[in-house]
Amino acid sequence: MERIVSKQNTKIKELKKLNTNKGRKKKQQYLLESWHLVQEAINNLPQEQIITIFTTDDQYLKHGSELKNFEVILISEEIAAEIADTSTTQGIFAVCKIFDTSLEKNEYQGAWLLLDDVQDPGNIGTMVRTADAAGFTGVVFGEGTSSQYNSKVLRSMQGSQFHIKLVKEKIENVINQLKTNEVPVYGTELNPEAINYEMVKPADNFALIMGNEGNGMDKKLLSETTENLYIPIKGHAESLNVAVAAAVIMFRIKK
Amino acid sequence: MERIVSKQNTKIKELKKLNTNKGRKKKQQYLLESWHLVQEAINNLPQEQIITIFTTDDQYLKHGSELKNFEVILISEEIAAEIADTSTTQGIFAVCKIFDTSLEKNEYQGAWLLLDDVQDPGNIGTMVRTADAAGFTGVVFGEGTSSQYNSKVLRSMQGSQFHIKLVKEKIENVINQLKTNEVPVYGTELNPEAINYEMVKPADNFALIMGNEGNGMDKKLLSETTENLYIPIKGHAESLNVAVAAAVIMFRIKK
Repeated sequence: MERIVSKQNTKIKELKKLNTNKGRKKKQQYLLESWHLVQEAINNLPQEQIITIFTTDDQYLKHGSELKNFEVILISEEIAAEIADTSTTQGIFAVCKIFDTSLEKNEYQGAWLLLDDVQDPGNIGTMVRTADAAGFTGVVFGEGTSSQYNSKVLRSMQGSQFHIKLVKEKIENVINQLKTNEVPVYGTELNPEAINYEMVKPADNFALIMGNEGNGMDKKLLSETTENLYIPIKGHAESLNVAVAAAVIMFRIKK
Repeated sequence: MERIVSKQNTKIKELKKLNTNKGRKKKQQYLLESWHLVQEAINNLPQEQIITIFTTDDQYLKHGSELKNFEVILISEEIAAEIADTSTTQGIFAVCKIFDTSLEKNEYQGAWLLLDDVQDPGNIGTMVRTADAAGFTGVVFGEGTSSQYNSKVLRSMQGSQFHIKLVKEKIENVINQLKTNEVPVYGTELNPEAINYEMVKPADNFALIMGNEGNGMDKKLLSETTENLYIPIKGHAESLNVAVAAAVIMFRIKK
């Protein structure tokens, strides 16, 4: 089994590039960190999508039996700390292939969360995790929304990317297709004249759109939805965090 | 009006100490950053709690008329960047007195969020903001919970600290007092045998306890509540983010 002991090793240098958008785009690969995520990848991804596992001796001793079908490279604790995007790392990583899927004709049903120009990776990851917990079918990453392969997004999804479908599509196209299939599409806005979200009857088939943290949803998209929803603010807060608003609505309107 | 042009100025050095827990504790002061928060402080705090406003010329030109009743010190853009806890700063700060309040006998009513050993400042700030939006009376910062004066907590509360009551109390004492006043206290746990949160009839008087991100609520506290609530997970996510779980329950059970 290969063992790398120098930070100057070409493979390590290449690996570190996967911590940037540019590096991921160029190589069409991304990096998963922590045993929890590596294990979820092993259990859920097609084997050919997992290219290499990098692990410290310590992690290999613990999990080696589950790594038999993969190329494994041993690394020192020091190199693990060098690769890691977090300040404390367990020392196990998987290099995986970027595999962006789009929506097939027969997938325009179920409960979908559509992200329109959402910026903050922590918010995005939290929304994917919440959509999973609320029983959603999947999440659409629209234009302007941070990538699902961003390391902070990966981390805050906590494995939910392996439980529900994540697709990259133009939100406008998804709205049109859903409406053709008679699936209601709900926009969200900070406008008391929109419909109170509590008025929506819980259902299994619908889409909910969440917009940009600062500017809210795109005006044009708001005009193309079936209805737009509003969460009444009872106190003096000016708005809710986008991931909080998404959670409140998702748990309320998903049957 | 005093103007400071050197980063080495003693006042600036002292000010920077307020970005640490130790510094805040020693001086019993904290630092608010951004016009939004400074303005909320001016509108909501007793005047004697606002000690000094530090502002760039640019911000003073915009907001000087609202700063008449306070000691104002002008600073350069460079010094503002030095003081700031964020990478982009507007350039206006207020040094305020730490003023921890406890609960008076007649305040054990209304809707309260109790934080038991919650660690992440972003989560705490988001929960305070959500509690404000959901019409809660206040938030109790229990033992082990990060301080309301932590700069990340201050930032993520987005001014909600001026809209609802924030107190520092031992959660156990608060539970006992609430129960004496016949206010129901709901714990939260990841246990399907607890009560589904949707079964709670929306009300105006109750307390909801949220626990530590990793370990959940303290076992002893769980045994002292009126009931413990559970959010059914429909997908495969193992849990919800604590601020998300708090939001889902708060918006559901507050009348």
